[in-house]
Amino acid sequence: MGKMTWVIPDGFLPTKSLGEQPSHEAVCVLNLTDADAKIDLTFYFEDKEPLVGFQATCGARRTHHIRLDKLRSDSGKEVPRGVPYAIKVESSVPVVVQHSRLDSSQEALALFTTIAYSG
Amino acid sequence: MGKMTWVIPDGFLPTKSLGEQPSHEAVCVLNLTDADAKIDLTFYFEDKEPLVGFQATCGARRTHHIRLDKLRSDSGKEVPRGVPYAIKVESSVPVVVQHSRLDSSQEALALFTTIAYSG
Amino acid sequence: MGKMTWVIPDGFLPTKSLGEQPSHEAVCVLNLTDADAKIDLTFYFEDKEPLVGFQATCGARRTHHIRLDKLRSDSGKEVPRGVPYAIKVESSVPVVVQHSRLDSSQEALALFTTIAYSG
Amino acid sequence: MGKMTWVIPDGFLPTKSLGEQPSHEAVCVLNLTDADAKIDLTFYFEDKEPLVGFQATCGARRTHHIRLDKLRSDSGKEVPRGVPYAIKVESSVPVVVQHSRLDSSQEALALFTTIAYSG
Repeated sequence: MGKMTWVIPDGFLPTKSLGEQPSHEAVCVLNLTDADAKIDLTFYFEDKEPLVGFQATCGARRTHHIRLDKLRSDSGKEVPRGVPYAIKVESSVPVVVQHSRLDSSQEALALFTTIAYSG
Repeated sequence: MGKMTWVIPDGFLPTKSLGEQPSHEAVCVLNLTDADAKIDLTFYFEDKEPLVGFQATCGARRTHHIRLDKLRSDSGKEVPRGVPYAIKVESSVPVVVQHSRLDSSQEALALFTTIAYSG
Repeated sequence: MGKMTWVIPDGFLPTKSLGEQPSHEAVCVLNLTDADAKIDLTFYFEDKEPLVGFQATCGARRTHHIRLDKLRSDSGKEVPRGVPYAIKVESSVPVVVQHSRLDSSQEALALFTTIAYSG
Repeated sequence: MGKMTWVIPDGFLPTKSLGEQPSHEAVCVLNLTDADAKIDLTFYFEDKEPLVGFQATCGARRTHHIRLDKLRSDSGKEVPRGVPYAIKVESSVPVVVQHSRLDSSQEALALFTTIAYSG
């Protein structure tokens, strides 16, 4: 069950947060295999070259809800706020990926989610 | 129509509820077959072994919106609140599964949904 | 492009509406063919037999956002409010189906959507 | 990775906006190929012929979150507000398409999203 490459065209980290929950996105990975998954994330933009060097792991028989507002690249870079991006997720073993956003930039939070696309 | 195994990577039960509707998730099953479906749910976590022993049914030509905030395992365990999890749904007959969350932890409710992934 | 049978496991019509927009669901059909589509909707429940006799049309090269809060069956029945249901959509020609809910039962509206499942 | 034709049955541009973020829809395109994508959008309605002549681009290894509230056709037409429509997206190279709506017509914003349908 799963695939090794997934994409998410609609990525965006709101710049504002109100209330108890910060605005964020999560790349939610489920690894049903018996091997740990090494995960590489690439971020695509409208007007500049893709950003690479973002890594995460998801253990065997584990989930990892990778918080994009907390993610740092090998060289310490953050995912940029307030600009449209898209995401490619590559895993060393088959996994399933779902992407969700919580936007608390207005007085009540809004949520969306979708299973990512795997071709 | 349908599959016997479905997964949902982004599961989460908010700890707070405001207003008339409690924060909850539902695993919505549709069984178009002429046989009742026995359903097993397994919950996967970021840092501990999967939780098993959660069962439900969905009658022939019926739907069952399984409320995860009300679900109890064979041994009386609840689905934990406030921690990220993922869900595997296994059915004895082909079914279709959709997953939805209602979050009323702020002053207005938020909703999300997706058809689950079946490989 | 499209299929003749689609299903939506998570259907629900909220009983309350606040503000300008009534709580509702829409079964959104897109017909890219050159023939009009005859559409039959069947509603499945948790504890009773399916409801049939709900019909709609979607013209050639047209969309129809079928409002479930306004739909009436051949015999004048409404889709029941406040109870979980699931939907099967059958079309006389291939179409694409998306399902959305607007919930305005609290002080701000909430939305969700997904492409329906076609097997 | 990707397809050259995608459809989105549930399109709608709310007529009202409150707060800092205008109500809008975005057709989010990700182009992983090494060639720029020429994109044609066609809008389908419930009661009139489809609208054509809406074009956009998405560079090689780029994303483009095409804002439907800002899009203009060759002849300067806007996407109509306050009426149901559906969208066909055709690209000159394989791409992945996701569709999202932000509705700020009430006092707090609402969001929804789905990967578009590609057949």
